[in-house]
Amino acid sequence: MLDIQRLSTTQPDFEARLAALTDWDDGAPHAVEAAVDSILARVRHEGDRALVDYTRDLDGYHVEQAAELEVPPARWQAALEALEPEDRKALETAAARVEAYHQHQRQESWETTEPDGTKLGQRIRPLERVGVYVPGGKAAYPSSVLMNAIPARVAGVREVIMVAPAPGGEIAPMVLAAAAVAGVDRLFLLGGAQAVGALAYGTETVPAVDKIVGPGNAYVAEAKRRVFGHVGIDMVAGPSEILVICDGQTDPEWTAMDLFSQAEHDEDARALLICPEARYLDEVQAAMERLLPEMSRSEIIRPSLARRGALICVRDLGEAAEVADRIAPEHLELSVVEPERLASAIDHAGAIFMGRYTPEAIGDYCAGPSHVLPTSRTARFASPLGVYDFCKSTSLVQCSPAGSRTLGAIAARLAHAEGLTAHARSAELRLESPDE
Amino acid sequence: MLDIQRLSTTQPDFEARLAALTDWDDGAPHAVEAAVDSILARVRHEGDRALVDYTRDLDGYHVEQAAELEVPPARWQAALEALEPEDRKALETAAARVEAYHQHQRQESWETTEPDGTKLGQRIRPLERVGVYVPGGKAAYPSSVLMNAIPARVAGVREVIMVAPAPGGEIAPMVLAAAAVAGVDRLFLLGGAQAVGALAYGTETVPAVDKIVGPGNAYVAEAKRRVFGHVGIDMVAGPSEILVICDGQTDPEWTAMDLFSQAEHDEDARALLICPEARYLDEVQAAMERLLPEMSRSEIIRPSLARRGALICVRDLGEAAEVADRIAPEHLELSVVEPERLASAIDHAGAIFMGRYTPEAIGDYCAGPSHVLPTSRTARFASPLGVYDFCKSTSLVQCSPAGSRTLGAIAARLAHAEGLTAHARSAELRLESPDE
Repeated sequence: MLDIQRLSTTQPDFEARLAALTDWDDGAPHAVEAAVDSILARVRHEGDRALVDYTRDLDGYHVEQAAELEVPPARWQAALEALEPEDRKALETAAARVEAYHQHQRQESWETTEPDGTKLGQRIRPLERVGVYVPGGKAAYPSSVLMNAIPARVAGVREVIMVAPAPGGEIAPMVLAAAAVAGVDRLFLLGGAQAVGALAYGTETVPAVDKIVGPGNAYVAEAKRRVFGHVGIDMVAGPSEILVICDGQTDPEWTAMDLFSQAEHDEDARALLICPEARYLDEVQAAMERLLPEMSRSEIIRPSLARRGALICVRDLGEAAEVADRIAPEHLELSVVEPERLASAIDHAGAIFMGRYTPEAIGDYCAGPSHVLPTSRTARFASPLGVYDFCKSTSLVQCSPAGSRTLGAIAARLAHAEGLTAHARSAELRLESPDE
Repeated sequence: MLDIQRLSTTQPDFEARLAALTDWDDGAPHAVEAAVDSILARVRHEGDRALVDYTRDLDGYHVEQAAELEVPPARWQAALEALEPEDRKALETAAARVEAYHQHQRQESWETTEPDGTKLGQRIRPLERVGVYVPGGKAAYPSSVLMNAIPARVAGVREVIMVAPAPGGEIAPMVLAAAAVAGVDRLFLLGGAQAVGALAYGTETVPAVDKIVGPGNAYVAEAKRRVFGHVGIDMVAGPSEILVICDGQTDPEWTAMDLFSQAEHDEDARALLICPEARYLDEVQAAMERLLPEMSRSEIIRPSLARRGALICVRDLGEAAEVADRIAPEHLELSVVEPERLASAIDHAGAIFMGRYTPEAIGDYCAGPSHVLPTSRTARFASPLGVYDFCKSTSLVQCSPAGSRTLGAIAARLAHAEGLTAHARSAELRLESPDE
């Protein structure tokens, strides 16, 4: 029997059980903190030497010089050309769709002129140089290359530096090909906290960037948290999660497979199903039992569902929406007859996949939006990775002499109230002056 | 003689001296880290009890119950009505201008439909509840109430919770009045790491928020860094700074006073002037010596200029722009004849004050943009506090049955390449199905 928790909103301890399921301890264990602290300090002070050492010790990849960690673009291009035509076409189509979606996110600078000639505005420009962390290790994720690098390209970032761990020096050809398709500028075989440190502080070989994006393991997440302020970061990513809300009318095998697609990521991944019909929960559970043996990653899916999965029975779809908002899931599938209506009742989700024909997997690869999404209830305040993550704005103020008098008088009044004489005098000096 | 460093780009050690001036150690000292760690842990686990204790021990304000830390709206309104009419008018005019500016930043959700009926979109909604930290202590800053709370209001945030430290229980009436004008919902007399902890985790009395914004001291900054991920934060603020670029044609007293207006904040504040004319730097230095005795905060200005100030001589305005980009200042004044042209050559600044008639002080109080700006070179990647800080977006994907087949085939191909069978099968199941 497949092991997965059953919850119902009618249970007296439902609140506590839901909290236990969704609570994520966002602080790193002290051992991780200490390790990351010392890795970052060594990379900051010893540069390339530290990168060579950590890559040998932690990734089992021996190089003499840090320069050997860089993969030249000719190798990416060769990898792209060596792909099977169907793979190449899939990669390029996905890239084109991701680019098209993100073109909608471009923002324009604006300026407005007041009657007295004073101008106000907001200028938007791309970041100069960003670092993209692409996780590797057990699975290689070419899709992550597209989903991180393309929004940066659309924003107009001048230089996109990609890092990816390569245990034993191995990197999937598809990942190299994706770097070529996504328009990455430079690629280093570096992972973990040492990669984050290299991007944040720069070394003799790896250039310092202005912002680091992309998900990684606990060490990467903690390293990003630590360098935040020195460089920008997108978010501190937790384990991935899906919440499916179903009205009980979708083929149970479809729903079972959608839950598997989350659970197969890793044992911390969370797959949750909410439905008003207990019968349907039974059917999905039976389908999962039937389908699990076919899965190549069943040894990850099974413990993931047992530890973190849940089938949740609710009174109706209205209650499903309430529960969903408390979970604030990274991925939300609305496998129901009127998904627009249900979506509108739910505030917090990274991405919403609407209707029975929209499995999360399509969003993971090629629908268009980035698959880098806020996890672990951070959808309450955070957004999907987007073009806005690769731009920064600057406020513009240009007072006319007349505007300077009007506004200077107000500023001086408030500055005096705050006891800031120099602020007040700085405004007042312009009041006393004739027009130019 | 007023003590302030002189630099010139012709000095052989200019690079090193500039780096020394602008380097900011963004990590908190270990003593601050440890203190913040223990304050956050106690607030998280003991709630109100910890707030009452820390407020007594750290702010010297004794209350029996945490509920006494809340100031009811009637008191804000009374404070507003008791203001001198000129002060009230200044506060209300400033608030109206800040609101008008931020209305330009509102963003709309969008949706697009593809030929096969597949819909993609991006939904933008306000955050539910935010916390605004208003620094207190030595100076009271009603302007900070406006500059933090009004962008949140314009975004449509449902509940704005303000916290401000009140040493000995004292809070400036103008700060209370500003809370009334800015549309704050609840106000607690709480400061330091304990205020950040209360907002992040919630206590019996203080509700947990989704995001915490606003500048504070080193403890507040470190606490925000630590709770980031559990809640959103705007930025980790460092000391405030101004860079004035002058062509040598502005009244030296104006420039001297603009530099003072930054230096009077605190001894870590940085005031820098760049000019191609050494003669003008002498004139400004002479003006500073002359004007300093008139300043109410001269005992802060003098050490601030000595430790962190600099007068920098460059070859021309082109070089001034290059140096400015390396400083990436929070506030940039372009006191020159063609400020638009110079502004366009500079990439990194929190806010640009253009022309001789735009002292930073006007921006601090009433021009319109928020005065909460990226400090310490973070303008390379960060933006002024704005409406976008109080909204989050959700990606929307709705595949038509036909779209599901086209996109599902691509997704399945890429999922197989990544070795993620369940992802592939989840897409493939929909391929095998007839239209609804």
